[in-house]
Amino acid sequence: MSKKKKTEPAALEQAVRIIPLGGLEQIGMNITAIEYGDSIVVIDCGLAFPEDDMLGIDLVIPDVTYLEENIDKVKGFVITHGHEDHIGALPYVLQKIKVPVYGTRLTMGIIEHKLAEHSMLSSTKRKVVKFGQTVTLGELKVEFIKTNHSIVDAAALAITSPAGTIIHTGDFKVDYTPVYGDAIDLQRFAELGKKGVLALMCDSTNAERPGYTASEKTVGITIDRLFQEHKRTRIIIATFASNVDRVQQIINSAYKFGRKVVVEGRSMVSIINTATDLGCLDIPDNTLIDIDSLKNYPDEKTVIITTGSQGESMAALSRMADGVHRKITIGPGDTIIFSSNPIPGNEKNVTNVINKLLLKGADVIFQDVHVSGHPCQEEIKLIYNLVQPRYAIPVHGEYRHLIAQSKLAYDLGVPKDHIFVLRSGEVLELNEEDARISGKVTVGEVLVDGIGVGDVGNAVLHDRQHLAASGIVIVSAAVDQASRYICSGPEIYTRGFVYVKEADELMSGANDVVQQTLDKCFTGQGLDLNKMKTNIKDNLGDYFWKKTKRRPMILPIILEV
Amino acid sequence: MSKKKKTEPAALEQAVRIIPLGGLEQIGMNITAIEYGDSIVVIDCGLAFPEDDMLGIDLVIPDVTYLEENIDKVKGFVITHGHEDHIGALPYVLQKIKVPVYGTRLTMGIIEHKLAEHSMLSSTKRKVVKFGQTVTLGELKVEFIKTNHSIVDAAALAITSPAGTIIHTGDFKVDYTPVYGDAIDLQRFAELGKKGVLALMCDSTNAERPGYTASEKTVGITIDRLFQEHKRTRIIIATFASNVDRVQQIINSAYKFGRKVVVEGRSMVSIINTATDLGCLDIPDNTLIDIDSLKNYPDEKTVIITTGSQGESMAALSRMADGVHRKITIGPGDTIIFSSNPIPGNEKNVTNVINKLLLKGADVIFQDVHVSGHPCQEEIKLIYNLVQPRYAIPVHGEYRHLIAQSKLAYDLGVPKDHIFVLRSGEVLELNEEDARISGKVTVGEVLVDGIGVGDVGNAVLHDRQHLAASGIVIVSAAVDQASRYICSGPEIYTRGFVYVKEADELMSGANDVVQQTLDKCFTGQGLDLNKMKTNIKDNLGDYFWKKTKRRPMILPIILEV
Repeated sequence: MSKKKKTEPAALEQAVRIIPLGGLEQIGMNITAIEYGDSIVVIDCGLAFPEDDMLGIDLVIPDVTYLEENIDKVKGFVITHGHEDHIGALPYVLQKIKVPVYGTRLTMGIIEHKLAEHSMLSSTKRKVVKFGQTVTLGELKVEFIKTNHSIVDAAALAITSPAGTIIHTGDFKVDYTPVYGDAIDLQRFAELGKKGVLALMCDSTNAERPGYTASEKTVGITIDRLFQEHKRTRIIIATFASNVDRVQQIINSAYKFGRKVVVEGRSMVSIINTATDLGCLDIPDNTLIDIDSLKNYPDEKTVIITTGSQGESMAALSRMADGVHRKITIGPGDTIIFSSNPIPGNEKNVTNVINKLLLKGADVIFQDVHVSGHPCQEEIKLIYNLVQPRYAIPVHGEYRHLIAQSKLAYDLGVPKDHIFVLRSGEVLELNEEDARISGKVTVGEVLVDGIGVGDVGNAVLHDRQHLAASGIVIVSAAVDQASRYICSGPEIYTRGFVYVKEADELMSGANDVVQQTLDKCFTGQGLDLNKMKTNIKDNLGDYFWKKTKRRPMILPIILEV
Repeated sequence: MSKKKKTEPAALEQAVRIIPLGGLEQIGMNITAIEYGDSIVVIDCGLAFPEDDMLGIDLVIPDVTYLEENIDKVKGFVITHGHEDHIGALPYVLQKIKVPVYGTRLTMGIIEHKLAEHSMLSSTKRKVVKFGQTVTLGELKVEFIKTNHSIVDAAALAITSPAGTIIHTGDFKVDYTPVYGDAIDLQRFAELGKKGVLALMCDSTNAERPGYTASEKTVGITIDRLFQEHKRTRIIIATFASNVDRVQQIINSAYKFGRKVVVEGRSMVSIINTATDLGCLDIPDNTLIDIDSLKNYPDEKTVIITTGSQGESMAALSRMADGVHRKITIGPGDTIIFSSNPIPGNEKNVTNVINKLLLKGADVIFQDVHVSGHPCQEEIKLIYNLVQPRYAIPVHGEYRHLIAQSKLAYDLGVPKDHIFVLRSGEVLELNEEDARISGKVTVGEVLVDGIGVGDVGNAVLHDRQHLAASGIVIVSAAVDQASRYICSGPEIYTRGFVYVKEADELMSGANDVVQQTLDKCFTGQGLDLNKMKTNIKDNLGDYFWKKTKRRPMILPIILEV
């Protein structure tokens, strides 16, 4: 985008480099290197959940080859907040990039829980940073600035190098009346802006939406109203495990209306424990009860806070909806509240869970019991106005969202060649004089399947896709090495192809095809095994396509005896 | 729901029976039997697209065992409109249920095209019905009533038996200013209501939405405005192939602004040809051009109407977005308009296509260029008010939508025990005196994969899911029948499990496990083959789980030589 690019000037003197190692092509994997001289700090280290075609994959983490190659420069990870798309890859990446991790209180609490699960707690250097505090990492100084988000203790980062200051907002919203703690420190954004900010990297998630995001407190008012309206039923509320403020408000309403609270779902219990230990959650005495004590209270005196608001198949609410939850049975006496909106891609799963709950006779409320944790257009404009950056680098969101913020930045007066929508791996060099994309480093996706990291690649995925679509047909035979004649088989096995008992004719035809193929593979020296394998694949493939319009994977296995 | 149910009265005299053979548990498969005495008419015959876990499946069609068992009673199919979820299963079902098909002009045109593709045109009796016309089918009379929908020639059906009249709205909206033809025949609904209507089966799709659905003509105004605003670029508009009125409006705008029109996408071309032949689409001379003639016109004098508005991976727009369309290359000079909203479940695919188009530099417009074809709450209330049915049977939609319409019906004064949300297969018997669910007939899903209908069932699907998640490991060996000792192998093959070249250690350990397992399978008589297979599965399964936390399918193949 930079017009300067065309003139190919010499390397910028004393420039700072911004290198997204995930992001645009790897949504969810938020990880950005900021580099000046011999110092690199890495903002966040998130994971992504697999796309639909990544069959069998559990998680996707960023390829950090660039950091490995520059390991001597890497001074630490600075983390904006404790969501999976910002911290989830840490246990994997820290095994290769053994540097300290810096974050605010709850952020670090969640990271520590995660590291402990991977037995990496003692081997990882960590430092809890307070808002307003600055850590010096080589030639870079990183200040943590208070923001608001859908998790407590979210921070923006001001990273200062000799080339100037970069502000990275992290994920944020402007909440003048947050549930816990202070409102976003707009004064500090203004103060830094006044001094001069080189670049602003601002959250783009809601950049297509006009107006302001409502305060988290408005949800509390709605929850109070719903408790008022449903005094005679049990209430089950599903929300994001990490939304500590939301949980706080549900607990407040429960306490106000004299209900006991059960917390259900492993991730929910874990975050609530962490938040309570750190003082980020205030639970009145005798409010929380164990799930097994539910039976001691009338339904209308209980609330269950649960995971599963995104329709995740293994989460507690889905198990309730499927009637397979071991402790909770849904029925006409239940009011179920989704305090969440479906994340793009989860709409159908959520609607399936809603339908199942309705079919069990429950009352289901799924609209307007949620606010976003990201800034809408007016909030983005506010931050630009306070910060007045020389360069705008929209971050966090799909390409459509980054483009939407680019348009906002342009409307606010940032010149077009001062706005950069960076692809993953692009190196943006910038200082007060100039900014340009100067190269590209290695980036990519590393697939995690079970405990295997990176051992499933495109070839394996491609096989899984093939197997998923049409199954496999295995042709097995044994060949006598001396005579070069078939001494056992051929036998045909199928899995995931067709219900064989109902396909006698098809399979007997397949046997004929294989037999005819073998008959044609005899040469003067007997059987040509390679030709035989290739021909079985080709002929059987053609046969099945003709008969079924399907292309199963065909695997000939010939043993030499 | 009927309170009368508890008293278990004798079979209702002279009752009509409503039996959904698809619907609630099979969304998309709209097919309902209406039965009186020895006469059955079947409303619609739709197909569903496979759920995410139906790997490799192309289509899902209804199990029509009930119709087969009562084939002598079945008088015909009466079709409300030409959408896939109402006609798509006809070519499959008509092979078993050879009865005439009744529908309005465009509906029949689309059905005929479909039947021709299956070489079933000459073998299927068909009758084109006019609005206001009544066909007599045994003891049932079916009147086709003009409605509006997102496809031309949509009809409601009034089905009269000696037990009373049932009105089925089909999919509809109230459009006072439709693009083509007349507005919905509200007078006829009122007239029938005045005479007395036994039951109303009304479209529930938008029953959660307050207000009215806007007229299709409002979209035309938006399209005009967009053409006005984008005079300097090529315009590409994606919409539903079957939305003939939308296509008409795009053509109108193109003509008005002096642009030539290219139609791209097989289904789009097919429906436009059918609609034009039947006079449902009015294309000015010299407006349509061939895709190969595009190069003869400046970009800003062309419009491409294309399929792919739902992000379908093989549709024309997706191919353009992926840069693999053979004739059209997307670039900064393109304005791409989504004249559609994502159908639930397609959100992510649509957004992926939008991102890819933006990445190619195109301007993409995806909001507010669409109106729904289904009635919102005020329209539903209007129909109830005009029809004043004794019984309400919400149809078309997920359970949440049917429940939403039930609430509307109740608010409008229909007693609770006169409202029936029917599960697939439930038999609702009703007459002026009473209504009750009197039984359940066989229903279900038949999976279509390639040209196979019903040869992929749960076992095959389960195998595909297993293969998709973790791949397959095949252990092959040959055993000498005489000596009962292994004479070749064991050899291990994997597909979709792990990238073997990177997993030397894992696979060599697996070889050891298999070898040790075999060693333990020798009895006095040599090798116990069944024990050997079971133990290979168990031991190798345990080994892989321990090492990888994955459970590939394990298939031991032992040849006897």
